[in-house]
Amino acid sequence: MKQSKLYIYGKHALMEALKNAPRSVRKVYLSPKVQDEQLRAAIRKAGVQTAALEGKQLDSVEGHGTHQGVVAHVSSEDLVVPFKEFLKGLTITNSTGLVLLGEIQDPHNVGAIIRSAAAFGMSGVLMPEHNQAPVTGAVVKVSAGMAFRIPLVQIGNINQTVRDLKDAGFYIYGLAGEKGAKDITKMPFDAPTVFIIGNEGAGIRQKTREYCDELVAIPMHPKCESLNASVSAAVAMYAWAVKHPESLNLEK
Amino acid sequence: MKQSKLYIYGKHALMEALKNAPRSVRKVYLSPKVQDEQLRAAIRKAGVQTAALEGKQLDSVEGHGTHQGVVAHVSSEDLVVPFKEFLKGLTITNSTGLVLLGEIQDPHNVGAIIRSAAAFGMSGVLMPEHNQAPVTGAVVKVSAGMAFRIPLVQIGNINQTVRDLKDAGFYIYGLAGEKGAKDITKMPFDAPTVFIIGNEGAGIRQKTREYCDELVAIPMHPKCESLNASVSAAVAMYAWAVKHPESLNLEK
Repeated sequence: MKQSKLYIYGKHALMEALKNAPRSVRKVYLSPKVQDEQLRAAIRKAGVQTAALEGKQLDSVEGHGTHQGVVAHVSSEDLVVPFKEFLKGLTITNSTGLVLLGEIQDPHNVGAIIRSAAAFGMSGVLMPEHNQAPVTGAVVKVSAGMAFRIPLVQIGNINQTVRDLKDAGFYIYGLAGEKGAKDITKMPFDAPTVFIIGNEGAGIRQKTREYCDELVAIPMHPKCESLNASVSAAVAMYAWAVKHPESLNLEK
Repeated sequence: MKQSKLYIYGKHALMEALKNAPRSVRKVYLSPKVQDEQLRAAIRKAGVQTAALEGKQLDSVEGHGTHQGVVAHVSSEDLVVPFKEFLKGLTITNSTGLVLLGEIQDPHNVGAIIRSAAAFGMSGVLMPEHNQAPVTGAVVKVSAGMAFRIPLVQIGNINQTVRDLKDAGFYIYGLAGEKGAKDITKMPFDAPTVFIIGNEGAGIRQKTREYCDELVAIPMHPKCESLNASVSAAVAMYAWAVKHPESLNLEK
């Protein structure tokens, strides 16, 4: 997950950033047409520098037409936590769940998984440094602002990270489609849990699969070979969440 | 779901079309570079006319770069079934499930819902004629070919369709996020089921909500307002499918 300059766009994304990670917002570029007083007040409150929105910033937002006259430069170092620091600060219980992205390529999938992870009470989204779609403005947009509400954790080598997580007491589930994988509906999820979501085409790498405590599959009709990666991830996290209502802060 | 000319692209999508809906494939445009003998044999077997791929067809595939030298013109009339015809041919049991798209705008969501509906053993995807992203090449691509394996059903007015479905014995669940909606994990799903998935922004229209037998919500953390429409749909269909393993053709 190598970082280049991170630009986010749209009012909703910026409001989420200002509310949840104000220090990560370095500069806001606004079209003079933007009259939103609530937004301008939030920018003032966070003490963030503003400038007029120009073509240069618009070029940075990947051709998306939904910027609404609002673009902001966000420091990815303040948005993404290093793994060691994250693990040190984490209180691990049997209701702790993490999701680890195993070289997901599509920014749409990355953003959607971040959004679902926040919805289903995961404690963090772990993303490898290499061969992984980085956190971009498009990812933040698809996450519906959840990228600022759930820890995004930068990891190095996936297999080393999995070993560290096992040492910390986590049980590792690899989401795999093939025969031999266990039915995810049968899992008790009674230990700290990590879900590994594989690459859209190749799935989880062989070496990483060997490190998994369990390979699990979502039951599906034989006419369908596989699910979209973000759908698989969401269904797995949902299957976990219904067994951990306390992690959703739900009233019973 | 008004139809314009439907072009699909990529080898996988065409193979799925030739295998599952050969009559819908009207013409195949191939780059001379495509040497795939399996593909060429399938085209010959279906007796489909071919032509050299030119810029004109490429312009029709919505700027997607993943056509792999393969573009096909598919007749949407042969791909999409009218509602009355569909309902007449449908054997309705307590394990029959349908999904109804309530004015979904994002082709990515439409394609992903079609894919998940096939995976979770739904009997059809109902799509309104108006205010709904139509079946395009992009939708077919995101569906991973499942658009050719599950009935896509064209409906007129949503509320009239819901009335007809209720008359046919279906129980209608509207997926809604707000307070007052019932927890989807508590539903028995012991009658023929329809899920209505609302528009990405506005949700399900007020009038349609009144026709629902039950408004249901997916339990989620209060910090997250909502899920992506295709994720909501997938989780709802999964929650239904685990109570209907027979609809997945699974061995017990």
